[in-house]
Parts: sequence; C-alpha cells; structure tokens
Amino acid sequence: MTESTETNALVDEHVDPRFKPVAGLLRSFAAEDPDYSAQLAVYHEGRQVLDVAVGPNCTRDSLTGVFSCSKGAAAMVVGILLQEGALALDAQVSSYWPEFAANGKGSVTVRQLLSHQAGLPGVDGGMTLGEYTESHLAAELLAAAEPLWRPGAAHSYHALSIGVLMEELARRTAGERLQELYERRIRAPFGIDFYLGLPEAEERRYRDVLKPAQSPPLPFIDPFGHFGVAANSAAGFDGPDGPTRDLLDVPNVRAVRAAGIAAAGGVASARGMARLYAAASTGVVLEDGSRREPFLSGATRAELSQEQVFGTDRANGLTGAYGIVFMKSQPRNDFGSWRAFGHDGANGALGFADPAYGIGFGYVPARAEESGTGSRGGRLTVAVRQALLGA
Amino acid sequence: MTESTETNALVDEHVDPRFKPVAGLLRSFAAEDPDYSAQLAVYHEGRQVLDVAVGPNCTRDSLTGVFSCSKGAAAMVVGILLQEGALALDAQVSSYWPEFAANGKGSVTVRQLLSHQAGLPGVDGGMTLGEYTESHLAAELLAAAEPLWRPGAAHSYHALSIGVLMEELARRTAGERLQELYERRIRAPFGIDFYLGLPEAEERRYRDVLKPAQSPPLPFIDPFGHFGVAANSAAGFDGPDGPTRDLLDVPNVRAVRAAGIAAAGGVASARGMARLYAAASTGVVLEDGSRREPFLSGATRAELSQEQVFGTDRANGLTGAYGIVFMKSQPRNDFGSWRAFGHDGANGALGFADPAYGIGFGYVPARAEESGTGSRGGRLTVAVRQALLGA
Amino acid sequence: MTESTETNALVDEHVDPRFKPVAGLLRSFAAEDPDYSAQLAVYHEGRQVLDVAVGPNCTRDSLTGVFSCSKGAAAMVVGILLQEGALALDAQVSSYWPEFAANGKGSVTVRQLLSHQAGLPGVDGGMTLGEYTESHLAAELLAAAEPLWRPGAAHSYHALSIGVLMEELARRTAGERLQELYERRIRAPFGIDFYLGLPEAEERRYRDVLKPAQSPPLPFIDPFGHFGVAANSAAGFDGPDGPTRDLLDVPNVRAVRAAGIAAAGGVASARGMARLYAAASTGVVLEDGSRREPFLSGATRAELSQEQVFGTDRANGLTGAYGIVFMKSQPRNDFGSWRAFGHDGANGALGFADPAYGIGFGYVPARAEESGTGSRGGRLTVAVRQALLGA
Repeated sequence: MTESTETNALVDEHVDPRFKPVAGLLRSFAAEDPDYSAQLAVYHEGRQVLDVAVGPNCTRDSLTGVFSCSKGAAAMVVGILLQEGALALDAQVSSYWPEFAANGKGSVTVRQLLSHQAGLPGVDGGMTLGEYTESHLAAELLAAAEPLWRPGAAHSYHALSIGVLMEELARRTAGERLQELYERRIRAPFGIDFYLGLPEAEERRYRDVLKPAQSPPLPFIDPFGHFGVAANSAAGFDGPDGPTRDLLDVPNVRAVRAAGIAAAGGVASARGMARLYAAASTGVVLEDGSRREPFLSGATRAELSQEQVFGTDRANGLTGAYGIVFMKSQPRNDFGSWRAFGHDGANGALGFADPAYGIGFGYVPARAEESGTGSRGGRLTVAVRQALLGA
Repeated sequence: MTESTETNALVDEHVDPRFKPVAGLLRSFAAEDPDYSAQLAVYHEGRQVLDVAVGPNCTRDSLTGVFSCSKGAAAMVVGILLQEGALALDAQVSSYWPEFAANGKGSVTVRQLLSHQAGLPGVDGGMTLGEYTESHLAAELLAAAEPLWRPGAAHSYHALSIGVLMEELARRTAGERLQELYERRIRAPFGIDFYLGLPEAEERRYRDVLKPAQSPPLPFIDPFGHFGVAANSAAGFDGPDGPTRDLLDVPNVRAVRAAGIAAAGGVASARGMARLYAAASTGVVLEDGSRREPFLSGATRAELSQEQVFGTDRANGLTGAYGIVFMKSQPRNDFGSWRAFGHDGANGALGFADPAYGIGFGYVPARAEESGTGSRGGRLTVAVRQALLGA
Repeated sequence: MTESTETNALVDEHVDPRFKPVAGLLRSFAAEDPDYSAQLAVYHEGRQVLDVAVGPNCTRDSLTGVFSCSKGAAAMVVGILLQEGALALDAQVSSYWPEFAANGKGSVTVRQLLSHQAGLPGVDGGMTLGEYTESHLAAELLAAAEPLWRPGAAHSYHALSIGVLMEELARRTAGERLQELYERRIRAPFGIDFYLGLPEAEERRYRDVLKPAQSPPLPFIDPFGHFGVAANSAAGFDGPDGPTRDLLDVPNVRAVRAAGIAAAGGVASARGMARLYAAASTGVVLEDGSRREPFLSGATRAELSQEQVFGTDRANGLTGAYGIVFMKSQPRNDFGSWRAFGHDGANGALGFADPAYGIGFGYVPARAEESGTGSRGGRLTVAVRQALLGA
C-alpha cells in the first residue's frame, strides 16, 4: 500500500493511489464551497486506503454526531446476539419481553420489529430525552403502546424508537446495556473511533454539528400523525441539559452523547465508521500486518443484511429498504451493491460495508447536508466503486 | 361553551371562540370565490363547537349527496356487527356467505374483503343502478366473480362494490338491511343528520350536488380495466329515474338517495357528519347536559380503525391507506392523526373522527371540488388541529 | 370478413373494415417519421382482422428480435406444464430441482419464482452468453445463489434469469428443452410465426433490430447492484459469435436466436405474436373455416394470468405487475383489460391476449422505441379497444 500526503492547510489525508480520484472528488466539493468540511475514509480488504479531511471545520481526528449512523453500530450488537443464539429473528418479541405482548402485539416477531414493520415508531405525546437516555423507561412506553398499523401491513422508519427497541432486546437477552456490549465486544478490541457513549476523555475532540444556513419553513406536522410520532414532535427533545426542539442539536447535548443512545447518540470520525464496517465484514489488518478476523461470521452478516422490507414508507411516502435495522442501497439512496448494508444520518453522514467490493466506508460532513442518491455522500460512493471497478 | 353569531347573509354559524380561526379560513375561501358554498361542522369531546355555512348555495340545514362519505356511515354498522360478535374479521367471508367461495375465493377473509384487498372492485360489464339499489342482486354477481388479482396480493379502492359487500354481510349476519340497522341503531337514537336512505319528508332540504364549471377531458378508460371495472364504466349509472353517466349526478337521482346505497347514496349536512363521528368516538353531550356514550366501544373502534393496508392502489397508481372500510390519514390525504378514521367523497366532502383530538369533523362543499392534502377540506383539518394544539 | 388492400409501396396490409382506424393510426406514425417501420397484427375471436406493415424497414413477412416478448412464448410452455400437472404453482421449486434449496431457498414456491419474487434476478459477476444458451449452466449458478432479498419480501423484474428458470423447470419436469416443447406443442401445430430458436431456413427473413439514433448517456450502474445484476452488467453479453455490450444487439447474434433463449432470444413477426396469443386464448379459425381449440384451457389461462404481484420494482423503482411470468396491464403500461396477459420487449414490441375483447395482439417496430402507456404500441392498443367498443 502506497501512501501520499499533500501539504494543504485544508486537506489532511492518507490516500492509496488507486483512490486518488475519490479524494479528488472530495476536494472538488471543498473547492466549490469554502465552508464545506468533511471527513472521508475507506477500508479495502481490511486496510485503510483512504482517510481524508477537507475544509476548515474538521480534521481527520475530530469527532461529531453521526445521528442515525448510530443505528448501524447498535445493529452490530444485534448481530452478535443473533450469532450467539441469544436472539432469533423468527422468535416472538414477547418471548424475550413479555410486557411487549400488550395491545395485540403478542405475535410480532423480532424480524418484523427490527425491520420497521411492527408499527411502533413512537408513542402519542412523545417521550422525554430522559426516557431515551434511560431507555428502559422508553421501552416500557413502547411495550404498552398500540401499534400504528396492523403489524406487518406496512413499514415506516422508526427513527428514534428502533434504538430503544434494540437496547431493550440487549437488556432482555444479554442482561447488559447495548452500549456496554458494543464497547466491550466491538469498539475496544478493534480500536474503532465510533462511540456509543462518548467518554469524557474524548470530549476535547468533539465538534458540534453545524447546521445549514437556511432551512425551508416546514409544513404543518401533526404531532399525532405518523411522521410526528416517529419524530417525537409532541415532546421535542427537552432534556436534562436544557431543551432543544431541533433534531440537529441533539448530539450537541452532552447527556445524549454520553448516553450514546442507539438511535442517534453515536459520535464518530469517518475513519471510525469505515473501520467499524471493515471489522464487521472483512476484518482489519493490524499494524503488525496480522489480520483480526471480523466479529460477525459470514452467515450472521447474511442474516443481518438480508433485505426484509422494501416499499413506500408509511410516514413520509418515500421508498424505504431495510435489512435487520440496516439500510439497504436502493434507487433513491444508491450507496452500494445489493450486499451492502449500512446507515445514513440526518446530517448526511454515511457508513456502510459492501461485501461485493470488500470495503468499509465512512463519510462525515461537519455541516448537515442532504443524503441519498446524487448527494455528496452518494457521489463519493460512486467514485469509490468506480475506483475499484477500474472504470 | 361560548357562542358567537355574526349577521351576514352568506354566513350562517355557530362558533366556539377557540375555533374562530377555522371559521375564518372557511370565510376566506368564500371571499376568494363568490360562488363557493360549503358547510363545516366540528364536535369536540361530544359538544358541537363549530357549525358554519358560507356562500349562496347552502345553509347549515341543507342536505346534499356526500358520495363515498356514505361508506363511513355504513362502516359504523360493520362496527356494531363486530362489536356484537355477529361478524369476525378473521373469519372467511364464505362462512357467512357460502356462494362467495366461487372462483377460488373460499379463503378470502372479512378483513381482506373490507380493506379493498379481495380483488372485487366490480364485475365485467358493470351493474345497473337497480342492481345497486337492490343490492342482493349486485352481491350475487360479485359472489360469482373471479377476483381481479390473487386475493391479498394487491389492494384497490372498491369504489362501489364495497358498499354492496357491506350490505350483503349485514343481511347475512344480522338478517336485516344495513340501512335499517343504521337508522335504528345509530341515526335515530343520536339524532344524526346523515341519512342512508333519505326519507321523503326530508327531501325539501336536499340540494343537488353542483358540478365544477369545466372538467378536463378524460383519457381513454378501458371499461374492462381495473379502473373501469371499479367505476362501473361499462354500464354507467342508468337507473329507474333515467340514465346518467356522470358519477357526480348519482345522488341527484331520487332512487339512489332513497335507497341510500352504502357506497355512495348517503345524504348529509356537515353537522350530521360531524355528529356521526362524535357519536361513534366520544359520544355526544345532549341538550340537558347529559352525555350519551359512544355506540362503539374503544376496542371496536381500535379494531375498525386499525390500518390494514397501505400502498399503491392497483387501479390508479396512487397511494391508498385503509382500515376496515375507513380511509386513514396519509401523506396524500392528510386529515388527522394516525388514530383518525373517516372517508371522503367524490365531491370533496370529508367526515372523520380523530380520537387523538377528541373530534368529529364534517365538511360538505355545495359544488364538487378536489379532496386530499392541500385541498380546502384538507386545509380546514389543519386549522382545526392547530386550534386544538394552540399552535 | 371483408378485406381491403391498399396499394402503397410502404404499406402492406390486410384490414377488416372495423379496424381501419387502427391501421390509420399506424399509418399516421409512418407519415410523421419516414424512417418509422413496424408490423401490427390483431386476431379477433380466432380470425386475423389486421395484418399491416408500414415503412421501409419491414414487410408483413419479415422477422426480427422481440426481446422479452419471448418470455410470453416461453410462459405458454409453463402453462402446458401446469395444465398437465407436471408443475404446480404452490409446490416448492426444490421439489423439482433439489439443488435450488441452497442458501435458504428451500421454501421458495414456483409461484414466487415465476412472478419475480424469489430474489434471483441474476448472479454476482454475471453470466456468459454461452451459459445462457446452454441454460443448464446458468441454472446451476442460479440454484447456488443467495437471493437478493428475503424471498417474497419484494419483487423485481428478472429480465434474463426468468428465462433460465423456466427452461430449467421444463427440463426438470418434462425432461425436454423448453424450446422443443414450444416447437412441438405450440408453434408447429398452430403455424405460428414466432420462434424460440430460429431455424436456419428462416434466417433469410430475419432483419437486424435497428437502434435509436441517439441514446442518453447512462448514469453509473453498479454491476453488483440490483439493476446491474438483473442486466448482467458485469459480464455484458460476450458470446461465441463475438462480444456485444448492447442489449439491443443481442438477438442480432445468430447464436442467440438459434438457441432461442426464453428470456430474450425469440424472433417473430407481429402476425406470429398475435396468432400465438389467439391460439392460447380463443383458438384460431383455420383456412377451411374449422376452428382449432386453444392449447390452454380456461382454467389454465386463469391460473397463468392471475396477477400475483403488484408494486414498486426493487431494482428500478417503477411500478410492476405480473401474473405467472406474464406482464399485466397497469397504469404505466396500459395495454388491456384486467384479464389481458402478455409481454413487451426492450425494442417496444408487444404481444398479448385480452380475453375481455377476444383478441390476440402483436406489434413489432423495426427500430427500438419506448414501450408503455402513451407509446406507439400503447396507443395502438387503445385504438384496437375503441374499435371493438364502437367508441
């Protein structure tokens, strides 16, 4: 692996020559917009082949909130639970969590629950930030709730609740907090710069998520409608550190990133995201040249990443595609092959593994931006694939 | 409850102060279009908080055809049958109606049938108006028919046939006409100005549905295609009172509104629609201040209003969302919370209950207009919700 | 049946007077575009009522590649296998083809497999043209493959693989090549000018598929994504006759049309396509005035043409509607009644039966063009229906 390092105050990088066009595309974004700042990292077959930061608002080492990319890290713990037989996709949720059977949910399976099909995107009236950070409290509310549709009849992105549901399943099956399992089984042993629960010691590297200059005025969102319930609109995100109603501020609240809530409280660098996905799929090559095998077996990866649902999201009317928690690449969010699995975040961050290409990918913009096909993150995934295809 | 009455030849109203902005929005529609005429009524926690009519073509007391809003009234009877155990959603239709098993429909459930999934939007060649008004005749044709898709594989709005199917289920399970059950169990005891079968005595209050000035020319509709079969295109609506091919004229035919066909023959004022939904969900406060409990239990309401199907309609390619017969609020027809259940009509009329807000809502324009998100009716539902949210 | 023949160097026709407006529409296309050339044929109740060719690049007797219209011919063989009990839709594929059970596909049914729901649009890395023409080789690869989604959770057009799958099912259940069954049981006895495997003797009538003057540049297609896998992008169509990467050239390769691969290797005239569908549905009237009964019974036609899946295609995000292999008429591809079944091709060719109208229809443009609602082929189907409705 050859390495090139350019000296440029606004570019901080490690680039394998094969991936120069990818770094070039990232730099072109920065050239078009002096405020643009982002990290991009790629692992290929376990080796880091790209780690670049551009722009004034981040370095390769800075950390920021990655919103729903957190779900990808949390879902890795679900993978470990499946792999070890603690959890089974076709089991009823209520077999692990008896209270969940309330209101006609007794036959909901883990498979349905973890692919956004159970009709539990939230609860009427919303939940407090404290209920999310002490998620057994949020879990109690969800267990008691009436599903928003006949389970299985539709799907809709459980933007916040799927984190609570994963956390409760970890608690019920492994008797441990999901975040502790993640730290102990995944993050620490693989040295991954992606935290569910940012330690005090790393706080100095944290940079607040920056918000776009202007946002269009929102139409009326019914706090008791599908979208409003999923977005916790009725309660906003008032929490112990003070209130915020803007989702983009949520990880900027220390209590949220300290708790590392599985839905949206993760903090990472692009390098950390790429390494997480490499560690899950190809394994990683250590500094001494030895290889650490992936923490998920091929069979578990297949089980976890198999697409479970595809179609129109009940809340927003857009097309969704999900495996077990993970987002799948699809026409409106084309980030990889049919084997790819990952997650994007509300700020446009994106992390995934693509076994067809042998890569782990991480992209983290400093200022929130669009995600999906044609976005900066989406275009970078095309550039990576073209680099590997030799196109 | 305070009451204000303005003296304005074109505004006839009863308005609780909290809902003044809602009445104001309705008046603004009338100010923009001197021909615009409509009724709007809202019940909140069983009390009428709004009853307004604007424009030259209606008063609060006038009645007109409400088209598919009729399905909402008819579905209330289905609710009573479910509540009393006469009908069960997961039973096979053929268990009540053996002839229905023809052509591979033996395993179709009541749940599928009443959520537009059974593939019976109509029959090739259509049906006569007489077959609809004597709906056991129409039911015979539907029972014998081949489904338009493998039952359960798709859904498509059964614009006319779902009324026939409800009527036949009432006949088979209660041994009585659906319209009689509605009159005896619901309309009369609650004093609801919404008729399935308009009595001769009320005819003087009926005003013909007015039609829009110009309609765009229609593309070719195959009378044997999904849309044409559902719209009865092959037969039109020739009936005993003379032929009409325009759906908007159908309730203007006395025989139709006398029969009160469940799919589209209902006649109501906005006040009647709002009261029906209040009577079903919150109950109504009587003149002596006492409360009449709702005719549906909470469990029945939940069963009836739970979303059964969501997705692309087979016939028109638009998104549909249905509970048991009732329409559910969704991105292209946003009228309430996820708990709301109701129905709109081809003339833009809209009636629903929204348990999240404790309301019953009725809107009836005198001249046919668009429905759905952003329509006048849709905007009025937003204004009502904002009034209650204090936004 | 009256017959008119106009003398026009560029129009070669047989037209029943009732269908003159249809021929007129076809001629109007030719008048607008001097290069436009196409064949159109219609059978009604077993009699040929239209057989017209316009333009410089074809006659009524010429043959060309009809791409996926081939699937319609191949699916007729599936119909014969169903009719004779050799194959059953609700049986597991693996009951006929044990190797197919690999990678969790043991419970996939024939119904799912043949309605694009099994998740096998292709294989990573693609297949060679030789593997398609010797389709047991392609079948081995598909049997071993991992499905691209949980079978049944989505559907996506299996553009090439569904041909392989039909061919293998014929081999496994009838012990004979699908093409041989087609020739012996269908094509030869009914004298149908639609070949799966064009004999050397008919080669003189073959005209290369012409390509449109300009095509828009394509966006990046991931060869390992859903669309790329279905389109065999990774391998292109390199074959024994030399390489081609353009799908529109595929039938112009003699080896492809000699093999008559079921997915896309068929060669036909419009007359042949119309006669195939007439032979399947109404039967055909022979020259001596006697009638040859259809080769499919009404029950088999109903089984084969019943819609199995409707919704958003996983690969391209567009709406799809399929029976057993056959395309069904739908909003974005309106070609007939709900009973119609047929298939279009990448060049805009279209063949179908419509039992509601008693017709068999074939349309073959010489130069590749668009298909679907509003296309030339689509407009011709409207004209045929209007002619029969007397509209």
